Amino acid sequence: MVEKKDILNLDKFSIKEINDLMNMADSFTEILKRDVKKVPVLRGKTIINLFFEPSTRTKVSFEIAAKRLSADLINFSPNLSSLKKGESEIDTLKTINAMKIDLVIIRHSDSGYINYFAKNIPVPVINAGDGKHEHPTQALLDLYTIYKNFSKLEGLKVAIVGDILNSRVARSDIKLFNKMGLDVKVVAPSMLIPQNFSCFNAKIHSNIEEVISEADVLYMLRMQFERQDKKFYPSTKEYNEFLSLNLSRLNKMKKDSIIMHPGPVNRGIEISDEVMEMQEIVKDKIKINTQVANGVAVRMAVLYYALS
Amino acid sequence: MVEKKDILNLDKFSIKEINDLMNMADSFTEILKRDVKKVPVLRGKTIINLFFEPSTRTKVSFEIAAKRLSADLINFSPNLSSLKKGESEIDTLKTINAMKIDLVIIRHSDSGYINYFAKNIPVPVINAGDGKHEHPTQALLDLYTIYKNFSKLEGLKVAIVGDILNSRVARSDIKLFNKMGLDVKVVAPSMLIPQNFSCFNAKIHSNIEEVISEADVLYMLRMQFERQDKKFYPSTKEYNEFLSLNLSRLNKMKKDSIIMHPGPVNRGIEISDEVMEMQEIVKDKIKINTQVANGVAVRMAVLYYALS
Amino acid sequence: MVEKKDILNLDKFSIKEINDLMNMADSFTEILKRDVKKVPVLRGKTIINLFFEPSTRTKVSFEIAAKRLSADLINFSPNLSSLKKGESEIDTLKTINAMKIDLVIIRHSDSGYINYFAKNIPVPVINAGDGKHEHPTQALLDLYTIYKNFSKLEGLKVAIVGDILNSRVARSDIKLFNKMGLDVKVVAPSMLIPQNFSCFNAKIHSNIEEVISEADVLYMLRMQFERQDKKFYPSTKEYNEFLSLNLSRLNKMKKDSIIMHPGPVNRGIEISDEVMEMQEIVKDKIKINTQVANGVAVRMAVLYYALS
Repeated sequence: MVEKKDILNLDKFSIKEINDLMNMADSFTEILKRDVKKVPVLRGKTIINLFFEPSTRTKVSFEIAAKRLSADLINFSPNLSSLKKGESEIDTLKTINAMKIDLVIIRHSDSGYINYFAKNIPVPVINAGDGKHEHPTQALLDLYTIYKNFSKLEGLKVAIVGDILNSRVARSDIKLFNKMGLDVKVVAPSMLIPQNFSCFNAKIHSNIEEVISEADVLYMLRMQFERQDKKFYPSTKEYNEFLSLNLSRLNKMKKDSIIMHPGPVNRGIEISDEVMEMQEIVKDKIKINTQVANGVAVRMAVLYYALS
Repeated sequence: MVEKKDILNLDKFSIKEINDLMNMADSFTEILKRDVKKVPVLRGKTIINLFFEPSTRTKVSFEIAAKRLSADLINFSPNLSSLKKGESEIDTLKTINAMKIDLVIIRHSDSGYINYFAKNIPVPVINAGDGKHEHPTQALLDLYTIYKNFSKLEGLKVAIVGDILNSRVARSDIKLFNKMGLDVKVVAPSMLIPQNFSCFNAKIHSNIEEVISEADVLYMLRMQFERQDKKFYPSTKEYNEFLSLNLSRLNKMKKDSIIMHPGPVNRGIEISDEVMEMQEIVKDKIKINTQVANGVAVRMAVLYYALS
Repeated sequence: MVEKKDILNLDKFSIKEINDLMNMADSFTEILKRDVKKVPVLRGKTIINLFFEPSTRTKVSFEIAAKRLSADLINFSPNLSSLKKGESEIDTLKTINAMKIDLVIIRHSDSGYINYFAKNIPVPVINAGDGKHEHPTQALLDLYTIYKNFSKLEGLKVAIVGDILNSRVARSDIKLFNKMGLDVKVVAPSMLIPQNFSCFNAKIHSNIEEVISEADVLYMLRMQFERQDKKFYPSTKEYNEFLSLNLSRLNKMKKDSIIMHPGPVNRGIEISDEVMEMQEIVKDKIKINTQVANGVAVRMAVLYYALS
């Protein structure tokens, strides 16, 4: 039996396989430039958006990707109040699977649950974010955005700034960027660094000023206020002093460097209002909306990969 | 570059353009009589239903219209609690736009916001109701309903009754009806008339009895209890005395006149239960469900117009 | 005029008509084994999922069924807080009907309402569960599951165990199973038996041990905690003593007998955790997920029947 093609994280993917996904995303990017952006490659397939945690952006991105591949996309948001965690969630998943669906996209607030789910159903599972653990399609679209901008990956200097501790995006990005030969540094105070961070192979800085002038990619993380007791966080004043991107720091960035953020931006925290308002003016520099655009193409590639 | 075809209000539309939309709605009305009510004219287009304010009827009407044109319709209801008003909403809109969608239908509780949104994204925006400001597709379907009933517009006497102050339907209707040559009067106590009302070119009455026997169209507005501090409202007793449609008033209406309401009716307020229960019996007179039916055809016309 | 094909309950369906539906479900079961599970038989039809009561499983099952028949499925969940019960709900239904939809699937918490709705709109209505009253598509999928397992119906011994009082599944199942010649017994304490139960033609037992060794089908009902004041219920201890399925009782079941449950299971109440965890091992015996799978095929048959 051929193994099913889950994408729970990207650890097992070889460099070649990652490059194949990038190339596939490129093909879909071309299709998305057409007037009719729809292709019939997944016609008749049923895909479930199973979001145990609220989401709008990622959910809609997957929905658009699925529909542009002509799949039927069903949004399924379990009423969490009626679920006894654990066994009941797996029963819910088995129920959905019994309806002979072809693929499940899952977001869940608890790290690691998705692996358990994936073991228990026979169709591919795509991880759309599990707690503080992994967010592989975000990492792929981030990588694709960097590659499209620089036409290379090897040796690029990436600084990932902010709430490393609570960020699944940081975890998935750091591992993927390292695998693909980028040079990754992080900027965060010690309280926002996870305990086992030494295994991530990334140098730690505590002040954005230490990296601002040399980074090719400045990756600003979202402060995950919703995922953490606020008292463990730096104050806005401290955040702004050591971690925020403002106009004066924007001016210190090197020519042709870019700014990324997984969105949505907490304006005035990660990035100042002034910089955000310049998005149209410096759009070759601020890639936040390019990331969103690439997200659809990358998710089309991921769905196509998993179902073919 | 051709200007994009927003429909935020109908002020810039010429009489000819309005008539063109009516004719287009007529074509779609014919299609909706077929067994297969679907045409492939917007196949491959992605349309977003972006409702910042709760709605069921208008949202579903647009969803049905889009699907009957073979477009992909994505419902996007932002979790308002997590949005910082203003900048964050425009960031949300830009995110959606980055996904290369073709058109956005927006409802928003604050008057005027939609114009700001429309300026900031490159695809057509349809206003599905913004606060107390405008509701252009409702005005178009109201006009179309009147035209289909009388086979003319010029000179028809319309009385719009009730909560003018808080009604976007009233604003959009009065302007469109005036433009198209109808004779518009309003019936409302002074507390339910906006301050700048003189510019609307409509005579004000305070008792429905003054217009009941001469109106061709009696347009009953919904009391917008959800949009206003109740204490500024007339009591139910006063409302019934001066503004409500009941059986005895129904009998005073002129032959071939019609009753309209944007729905949903507050029974016992705008229209009595007895009159509502007669809908089946006097369906040539009570056009509330005809308005809903025409709404789908008119919205198909509007979507087709904006995307072709 | 041909009568419209509502499915509010199955009382008027003849044995032949039930068998015809079973055969139609069989055809769709074959289609669901294909790689492309979609057929164009309801292309261009608009079906509304109108759920006045929260649901995930049944709603998604109907959505998948509709989409696999190529119909457009619109989810419509009225904001109940804004609805004045009764007249307003019927106004909502008339609004939806005015949009020229082809069929409405309705779930409603109040028994009997759906019959009233069905009388008031001209398109077929499928009852997706009304209070404690009826759940006809569940009964059909249960019957189909039994038939597919035993290749016959006549004379099979079915024991329905648990909360008969509050279960629409029990009502619909008992009537349908009796009609089709099965031998139906129920197991429940007197407090969980409805007053008029004598007309249901099913012998009552109070202890599952009395039927466990002779039943071909052991049908475990869900305790409807959400639909009843808990104080009228047996304690978990009493439930486990007289009504629950545990490992020791599983071992007393006769060879080739099966276990059914409408889902979701309250683990530790109707069925013990140990038995639930054995689903994969004894999947020829525990048919809960088979019921779900058959649900899609049966609902495809029901939609096709009602619209052809």
